[in-house]
Amino acid sequence: MAGNTILLAVVSSFSTCQQNYFALQVGKMGLKCRIIPSAVTGSPKFERMFCAQQNCVELYPVFLITLWMAGWYFNEVFAAILGLVYIYGRHKYFWGYSEATEKRMSGLELSLRTLSLSTVLSSLGIANCCLEEYLDLHITKNLRRPF
Amino acid sequence: MAGNTILLAVVSSFSTCQQNYFALQVGKMGLKCRIIPSAVTGSPKFERMFCAQQNCVELYPVFLITLWMAGWYFNEVFAAILGLVYIYGRHKYFWGYSEATEKRMSGLELSLRTLSLSTVLSSLGIANCCLEEYLDLHITKNLRRPF
Amino acid sequence: MAGNTILLAVVSSFSTCQQNYFALQVGKMGLKCRIIPSAVTGSPKFERMFCAQQNCVELYPVFLITLWMAGWYFNEVFAAILGLVYIYGRHKYFWGYSEATEKRMSGLELSLRTLSLSTVLSSLGIANCCLEEYLDLHITKNLRRPF
Repeated sequence: MAGNTILLAVVSSFSTCQQNYFALQVGKMGLKCRIIPSAVTGSPKFERMFCAQQNCVELYPVFLITLWMAGWYFNEVFAAILGLVYIYGRHKYFWGYSEATEKRMSGLELSLRTLSLSTVLSSLGIANCCLEEYLDLHITKNLRRPF
Repeated sequence: MAGNTILLAVVSSFSTCQQNYFALQVGKMGLKCRIIPSAVTGSPKFERMFCAQQNCVELYPVFLITLWMAGWYFNEVFAAILGLVYIYGRHKYFWGYSEATEKRMSGLELSLRTLSLSTVLSSLGIANCCLEEYLDLHITKNLRRPF
Repeated sequence: MAGNTILLAVVSSFSTCQQNYFALQVGKMGLKCRIIPSAVTGSPKFERMFCAQQNCVELYPVFLITLWMAGWYFNEVFAAILGLVYIYGRHKYFWGYSEATEKRMSGLELSLRTLSLSTVLSSLGIANCCLEEYLDLHITKNLRRPF
């Protein structure tokens, strides 16, 4: 178990660091713009950053579960690479959005496409696993873990 | 491991798809109501939908952990069925809330009751597992995985 | 698997109960302050409580993944204790913030420091596991699970 999921664990750790980093940046920006806590409005720059972070937070559990499902049921290396691309996309999105609303799109698209691809891969992996488990069909025996 | 949790993985995948679907609907509604991103107010219909989605996002990690705990420590089939009922409840809640604030209650109650039941089942399973592990008591040996 | 992670499961269950409890408190306070759902403003007390809960929700997936990573790759008992401290910190934070904005700091600091420590421990554990897996270095063979 531990050996098989080490890459997923590394990517998960990176992503938690990123989430903490985003939260910290929002907190700092709030101090800089003199937003008094419990208020989340008052400065357009702060609002954009806050909104970017909220969007990252929103999809974070979806990202995690997709990463692990794709890693377990499809292929660990693929899933880990997609996870890193997603993290990079989120990074671009966060800083793009902080600068200007228009600049958020490229990062957002990258991260959402990566997430969709992970979802498709994990669905394929799970479907394959279901076929093997319940119908004893081994269509794609060599699909998983070819490395 | 993989074989034992395949149903949980299927339900988790469904629920990630639902989360993506909700996020997409909110995004579309925002475009339709001409809400400029980083603003989340301006149209009552959009605000209701946004609030419904936020509520789903809020309890999503709780749902996932409860699903997997109930599946691991109590019974996989029960947990998966409860997970599906929860997803259905969230669906009703989301669309009911989008229509009118009053219509959200039936879906919300269904999903929260399912979640409570899952929590109780997982607590029972974990308590049982603790007894077996630390006190070597096998009270409910036949409770888990009777299928 | 099930036996090795029982403490993490117990802590996770506690934390889901806490999340449900926070959500319930916010709902009750909303009723008390006569906030009509989909609105989240109107009463400073409600706004503070809502903001506290949002902050807890925000870091909840980060907490869960850090707890499990630290438990799997470093040491289960340490991770579980840190998880309990985090839950206690969140409890202090939530009620402190509900009373006054200034009172949130002690709980927040406690929970964030615990989370940072868990992150460091899980990173150490994962790094160690990577070394063992890919470079066959067994530097800290006796570090994990000394109990």
